[in-house]
Amino acid sequence: METSINQELKKYTKTPFVTPEELLNHWQGHRRVTRKIIDAFPEDKLFSYSLGGMRPFSELAMEMIGMADPGLTGVVTRKWEAPSHLRNIEMPTTKADLLRRWDEVTDYINANWPLIPEGRFQEVDRAFGQWEGAISWIILYFVDNEIHHRGQGYVYLRSLGIEPPPFWDRE
Amino acid sequence: METSINQELKKYTKTPFVTPEELLNHWQGHRRVTRKIIDAFPEDKLFSYSLGGMRPFSELAMEMIGMADPGLTGVVTRKWEAPSHLRNIEMPTTKADLLRRWDEVTDYINANWPLIPEGRFQEVDRAFGQWEGAISWIILYFVDNEIHHRGQGYVYLRSLGIEPPPFWDRE
Repeated sequence: METSINQELKKYTKTPFVTPEELLNHWQGHRRVTRKIIDAFPEDKLFSYSLGGMRPFSELAMEMIGMADPGLTGVVTRKWEAPSHLRNIEMPTTKADLLRRWDEVTDYINANWPLIPEGRFQEVDRAFGQWEGAISWIILYFVDNEIHHRGQGYVYLRSLGIEPPPFWDRE
Repeated sequence: METSINQELKKYTKTPFVTPEELLNHWQGHRRVTRKIIDAFPEDKLFSYSLGGMRPFSELAMEMIGMADPGLTGVVTRKWEAPSHLRNIEMPTTKADLLRRWDEVTDYINANWPLIPEGRFQEVDRAFGQWEGAISWIILYFVDNEIHHRGQGYVYLRSLGIEPPPFWDRE
């Protein structure tokens, strides 16, 4: 019988690529990098500078916040509100205010991640009523969208002559 | 005893965030987007255009290839060679040549992913002798690095007046 248990377990231990805890650490590691990128912008450029007709980095950062906060709420509760950037939200007007909001979301994610219902990562849902996929895919979308727009922030900084904090340093 | 098995299984079924198969699809989905970005560049701009003193997108794409190909070899075999971009490799000189190499790596990843040894994702290793972490973290690094640099390619395209293929379409 012990052998039978081990055979059953083997099927399952073969399964994970990453665990939920590892993914949380992965996400927060990326969010630490993004925080440093926000902080690397001169105050005025954060809210005004862009290239190719794109949004300034403050607005890209607010999109990340607008996905992460109500997004995780949707993951936990199965109720989706429109992402903040599609609602009427008050935009921060200073770097300090933006960083404060960033840190609130950091705490919100840490507090709510353990509340994600068991089995939820494999459920197919429609994020914000629009984007359909497994919840794991939706969460990876939040992270990937952040990496994508943050990469654009790197170009903004370099074109301003500012050396950005390294991509690989997640501390 | 059945109950005991189920209790044991429950500990494990709770564990995965994504499975290896899901992560492979995730990676290849991103690689399909990147392929479209390469293709969206005018031939000459792919090899010459950049912003902020950064590399042209052909070189960023070759870095992705140089991580993915020997990187996956290291994951499978536990033997790491220097990433291609640190070795003396022949750079492609046409878009068609670059896309051909891209497609070869696509096939290489699909062929070699099933050869990753069981339990390997949780092993701590030093990618290319340099970057230490669990193999799952290292593979996510390959994907994230691609998203990061591809985001920069989006800025190049937009500043050239070209509407890039959408980030969210992984088909």
